[in-house]
Amino acid sequence: MENFIINNPTCLHFGRGVIDDLSKVLGKYGKRVLLVYGKNSIKTNDIYRQIINQINIANASVYEYSGIKSNPVISDVDAAAAVGRDNQVDVIVAVGGGSVIDSAKIIALAVPMQNTAWDIMENKVKPVRSIPLIAVLTLAATGSEMNPFAVVQNDLTKQKPGYFSPLIFPKHSFLDPVFTYSVPADYTAYGIVDLVAHALEGFFGKGETSLTDRFISSIIKEAMEYGPLLLKHLNKYEYREKIMFAATCALNGMTSYGKKNGDWGVHGIGHSLSVLYDVPHGASLSIAYPAWMKYFKNQIGEKLSFLGKELFNTPDPTVTIQGFEMFFKQLGAPTKLSDLGLGSRHKIEIINNLITNKVNGDNFLMDKVDLENIFDLMAN
Amino acid sequence: MENFIINNPTCLHFGRGVIDDLSKVLGKYGKRVLLVYGKNSIKTNDIYRQIINQINIANASVYEYSGIKSNPVISDVDAAAAVGRDNQVDVIVAVGGGSVIDSAKIIALAVPMQNTAWDIMENKVKPVRSIPLIAVLTLAATGSEMNPFAVVQNDLTKQKPGYFSPLIFPKHSFLDPVFTYSVPADYTAYGIVDLVAHALEGFFGKGETSLTDRFISSIIKEAMEYGPLLLKHLNKYEYREKIMFAATCALNGMTSYGKKNGDWGVHGIGHSLSVLYDVPHGASLSIAYPAWMKYFKNQIGEKLSFLGKELFNTPDPTVTIQGFEMFFKQLGAPTKLSDLGLGSRHKIEIINNLITNKVNGDNFLMDKVDLENIFDLMAN
Repeated sequence: MENFIINNPTCLHFGRGVIDDLSKVLGKYGKRVLLVYGKNSIKTNDIYRQIINQINIANASVYEYSGIKSNPVISDVDAAAAVGRDNQVDVIVAVGGGSVIDSAKIIALAVPMQNTAWDIMENKVKPVRSIPLIAVLTLAATGSEMNPFAVVQNDLTKQKPGYFSPLIFPKHSFLDPVFTYSVPADYTAYGIVDLVAHALEGFFGKGETSLTDRFISSIIKEAMEYGPLLLKHLNKYEYREKIMFAATCALNGMTSYGKKNGDWGVHGIGHSLSVLYDVPHGASLSIAYPAWMKYFKNQIGEKLSFLGKELFNTPDPTVTIQGFEMFFKQLGAPTKLSDLGLGSRHKIEIINNLITNKVNGDNFLMDKVDLENIFDLMAN
Repeated sequence: MENFIINNPTCLHFGRGVIDDLSKVLGKYGKRVLLVYGKNSIKTNDIYRQIINQINIANASVYEYSGIKSNPVISDVDAAAAVGRDNQVDVIVAVGGGSVIDSAKIIALAVPMQNTAWDIMENKVKPVRSIPLIAVLTLAATGSEMNPFAVVQNDLTKQKPGYFSPLIFPKHSFLDPVFTYSVPADYTAYGIVDLVAHALEGFFGKGETSLTDRFISSIIKEAMEYGPLLLKHLNKYEYREKIMFAATCALNGMTSYGKKNGDWGVHGIGHSLSVLYDVPHGASLSIAYPAWMKYFKNQIGEKLSFLGKELFNTPDPTVTIQGFEMFFKQLGAPTKLSDLGLGSRHKIEIINNLITNKVNGDNFLMDKVDLENIFDLMAN
């Protein structure tokens, strides 16, 4: 084990009807609320009404910024921060999935500063405070509701960096599985891929921790058992709650206890596919992970063997990789670039973007040749 | 799943040498430190020197209370609180196992009040604030380092109640596995029993949560794999760290995510054995748990079957119970009252104490007849 610190201050409210406690929680932070959300779907599924109702009960005034994209962009963050600054908001309520919550985290840092959001993302300035952030989750996937990470892309520079600060843990997050009922099958599947990929990034990180690895395989098992059932019954509370809870656990810190960090090389590859071709985040990972595993198979043989025994009843690394591929296919997620109409004609563009963005793993290093080989495994 | 809240504010520092960060952390809370510990063993194993060194680096003054017993008593809590009050301490540093940390939690509440500690334990008064508490763990067992619970006994009334308050989470806890090297084999074993029992109390609690149950079986597996190895190599860092981390996870909240609460009936029985005959806490649990499982076997058959498959490669509830019994024996822990020289001549006294203390499970209810039957299973 590596030395480590556990310090997760987010208060997570999980279960049916938990949104009814939002007004009480809001009361702790002030009377001026910046409400951030994505497309207008929350207006059709009653979530918006419930949020506004809670804000009214709290006797607070609300300023809105909507339209955050599913691969969120930095220009929205700057525009939302301006709304927050102009209206001197006390607290931010982010309603959505990881895109909205990640954006809101950077907004929370940008509101009290004069710098652009991109200056923050690029670590040109070091924020010293943030506006308190409350998250209301509507998509089970990224774990953003209980972690200090954010990923936002820059369409001009074609970059999609990650950002970390203890200042951006949500103060409170509200997770009602009913709020995810309207997520369609494809995005539900991508969320399941994303949570499995997060667990794997922890698993392949630096440092051996047997108990953490057992937690990780528990999370993946849960996703493999209930993910396919959920896709058959999108409105079943039990399956929505299991996937929602598993997604939180996959990136709330517990998959890296006793590790130096996760690997995150596959996420880097996925981000390039998203920033170049607007590939949904989860879909980029179901393509990149099997290829990455195949390429590093010899180095990760023992670890694959552990997962194989836990998940697929086999110690064989190759069969284990096939198991993951089959699982992603079973969810209806793409496992090859060709599934998205991409192929070798995009190789140069993709490799260039990976190199420009310095994509690498923290544990398994990748140079240009490695990335090219992984590309070939993604293509075919 | 039941609705639930995750909210654990303790900052946990885990690993070799983490105590070197104590001075920095102390600086956040003030200059007057109440140092609480047990017997003088920390003076022989260099821990005391390291703590005092850190307090000196922080330029703080220290007031000491030592002599906390391994089944801690309320009179020590009152006496220590008086020392804290008289010296207007800003922060408490508790160095020890669960007994010391549990005592320190009640001390932290009692210092700013005029009431006795027993008034607090009995909920006659409701504390509104506490002195910040920093824990330095020297025994892997109770999980007190990362939870809001405390158990202290009253020798006069022969009661050993549990207490809960969000005010008593340690602000920081320092866990260096090296600090547990000097724990002898028997108490090391009792600590392992205790952590397994905590995981089981969560497992048998109200509410089904498949992922939490997977986490629980992960923790028990870890204890079963590395507990016996540790007992053979008491000074091996790797085994000390694995058991120390497993013990924290067994009672830091994650074993009751999505459950109404744990059961805790077995702990109630164990506390009566401790308060009557000074039985070490873990030793009381290795006797009580197998008996409790045998008595409730029909009601918990399916749950035992799940554990059996995960831990003992069998779906058979009876074989699973035998597996736990064998494991406790392998650790050298008692599994029958007769192992401690207790027997049927103590039945009336034990049953009376159980009844007086209203011992019961939160999920599996026990009346007098149930308790008598469980006693018989503990005896023989």
